[in-house]
Amino acid sequence: MSSKQTDSIGIVSPQIQHFDEPLPLRSGRSISQYDIVYETYGTLNKERSNALLICHALSGHHHAAGFHEGDSKPGWWNECIGPGKAIDTNIYYVVSLNNLGGCHGSTGPTSINPETGNTYGPDFPIMAVRDWVKSQYRLMQTLNIPYWAAVVGGSLGGMQVIRWSIDYPDLVKKAVVIASAPKLTAQNIGFNEVARQAISTDPEFHEGRYAQKGTYPKQGLMLARMLGHITYLSDDSMREKFGRELKTGKLSFDFDANFQVESYLRYQGEQFSSRFDANSYMLMTKALDYFDPTVDHDGDLVKCLSLATAKFLVVSFSTDWRFPPSRSEEIVQGLLGARKNVSYLEIEAPQGHDAFLFPIEDYVNLLTAFLQPEKKENSLELRGNSHA
Amino acid sequence: MSSKQTDSIGIVSPQIQHFDEPLPLRSGRSISQYDIVYETYGTLNKERSNALLICHALSGHHHAAGFHEGDSKPGWWNECIGPGKAIDTNIYYVVSLNNLGGCHGSTGPTSINPETGNTYGPDFPIMAVRDWVKSQYRLMQTLNIPYWAAVVGGSLGGMQVIRWSIDYPDLVKKAVVIASAPKLTAQNIGFNEVARQAISTDPEFHEGRYAQKGTYPKQGLMLARMLGHITYLSDDSMREKFGRELKTGKLSFDFDANFQVESYLRYQGEQFSSRFDANSYMLMTKALDYFDPTVDHDGDLVKCLSLATAKFLVVSFSTDWRFPPSRSEEIVQGLLGARKNVSYLEIEAPQGHDAFLFPIEDYVNLLTAFLQPEKKENSLELRGNSHA
Repeated sequence: MSSKQTDSIGIVSPQIQHFDEPLPLRSGRSISQYDIVYETYGTLNKERSNALLICHALSGHHHAAGFHEGDSKPGWWNECIGPGKAIDTNIYYVVSLNNLGGCHGSTGPTSINPETGNTYGPDFPIMAVRDWVKSQYRLMQTLNIPYWAAVVGGSLGGMQVIRWSIDYPDLVKKAVVIASAPKLTAQNIGFNEVARQAISTDPEFHEGRYAQKGTYPKQGLMLARMLGHITYLSDDSMREKFGRELKTGKLSFDFDANFQVESYLRYQGEQFSSRFDANSYMLMTKALDYFDPTVDHDGDLVKCLSLATAKFLVVSFSTDWRFPPSRSEEIVQGLLGARKNVSYLEIEAPQGHDAFLFPIEDYVNLLTAFLQPEKKENSLELRGNSHA
Repeated sequence: MSSKQTDSIGIVSPQIQHFDEPLPLRSGRSISQYDIVYETYGTLNKERSNALLICHALSGHHHAAGFHEGDSKPGWWNECIGPGKAIDTNIYYVVSLNNLGGCHGSTGPTSINPETGNTYGPDFPIMAVRDWVKSQYRLMQTLNIPYWAAVVGGSLGGMQVIRWSIDYPDLVKKAVVIASAPKLTAQNIGFNEVARQAISTDPEFHEGRYAQKGTYPKQGLMLARMLGHITYLSDDSMREKFGRELKTGKLSFDFDANFQVESYLRYQGEQFSSRFDANSYMLMTKALDYFDPTVDHDGDLVKCLSLATAKFLVVSFSTDWRFPPSRSEEIVQGLLGARKNVSYLEIEAPQGHDAFLFPIEDYVNLLTAFLQPEKKENSLELRGNSHA
């Protein structure tokens, strides 16, 4: 673990880029103007050839590494981004943004809708992964970045990486898809639907117009997060973390939190519901459900991935049951079928889906090797062959 | 599938037994008087040696087989109970009851508390599995049944079977523990806690006193059931059942149910919340969380199971991830360690945890063989040996 400020990139500040050109969306709607908040770590080299894009997951944001002035907690992926770390800021100029529809500074449901003068709330359009990628492309242009040396993302972030690789194949040299899936299963969608129902049936939700009503669907968002949290952890990691430990040493025969795991989940839900916007959560989960890059390619993953030209690294984690290794292997099979350059590793890790955030040795070494600018990583490389 | 009325036991009627002797409970509390509703199928033989007890799971009840007058839907385990079925009513006198704390006729939160004249509501004591077993023992006495030829249960029902086998070892000849676990994991408890929070944070819950307030926490119960339902099905069975089929053939870019799985879960939640009591659901999940038969035996499953004298059949299902085969194997290892007579089979079945309700051929054959009154089932028997 290396979240100490000393080996971090230190103090970072977010920047905001305003866009005036309307962004047409997958849904047929568009956003007339918008802001994107982002951070950069490291230095863009003279050749402008070392830019690396981080795509965030469901509840992520632009603050991926370093510390905001006065904060004691670093960015969400500080373990893996920094000088000498897996995503090495001595080598790369890292760009990390908050996606549209989020609630951390980029235009989203809590922003003012210029057409009404009120917050967008539930009127903010549902975003598709390709819409985010398009907005990231525009940010890239304003930063005068000619191409990405690498695009990197875990979970929903990995889906953005896939979309980048087929929508802008010439602009992505390396693509790192971590703990992701080519599309959600019915079970995944089911969990998201329970989360959305928890939020939307909270009487304080008011069909998403809680801001105007002066309310907030805190309980619903809390439930959604508690549920999500269970799916991010492995059964094993929960066993190790909590076992069946009792809070007070004995059963209370009431409905207070008796077991440690209960109070942990309540705390996590409570924390999250204080800092995340319910409409954002609703639309982020929809983007997950809707993601299917094969939709314009007769449902054929090989056909769709044929468009890509990047070198791929696909990573999965042994105890991840939200997006288990078999889902990553579907992506790998698609890439191999399309005769693309792909390295794949399933990392042994007890942390479940959340493993992608941890500096696990094999994982760090793998990322480091793949992201080496010059060295070849032949030892990990598979091209058009079947894999173990 | 054999739910046709023709090979069912036909019309059945529930009976009610009243008990006046107070029932002391694990929690230290007691119930002063209570009713138990039950059904019987088949005929008690002259020797009174063919009685078989069915223990129900979380949302089950006494109506396990046959049809109530006028109903088109049979009991919940009609596929497996009836003449010539796995639990053969030509052989056995089957007794099936609704557990205390439930909401189908036995005394529970919706019953009148004689001390107050109001419904118990949240004042109904939290039941432990051993309390249910004790109440089942009393019912057995009133029915003048000297011992059970077999006690059978799936999931939470299997936990009652384990408790029967150690609390009344002389009264259980055969014990059938299906899709169960020796105790819940932190993940299991986590899911139950989210369900309880969904119910208890519903503003219509009023700390369980919704009956007095004239409200009902329907949304909370609906959410609890949607979540539960996902955990009863396997990822595979959901994929087969729904895939990513869209209700209307295209994405709607709104928060209506787009995918079939979403409307299915909403429907299931809706149905369940119309027929189940929220306080009952709360206490049934607590009984699950609290179950740990080793608690009086230094946490040692072998030591605790040493008390049993029954012949055991333990059954698990390959795609059950709520109580996966590994959990059944813990029970088997405990029994083997205690040198008990145990047969174990993991049944290949796509249905997940719910598989235990289906008449899957291998499963039916296994139950039939194990429940044969005379024949030996040596082929399946393991005694004190390690197993595959």
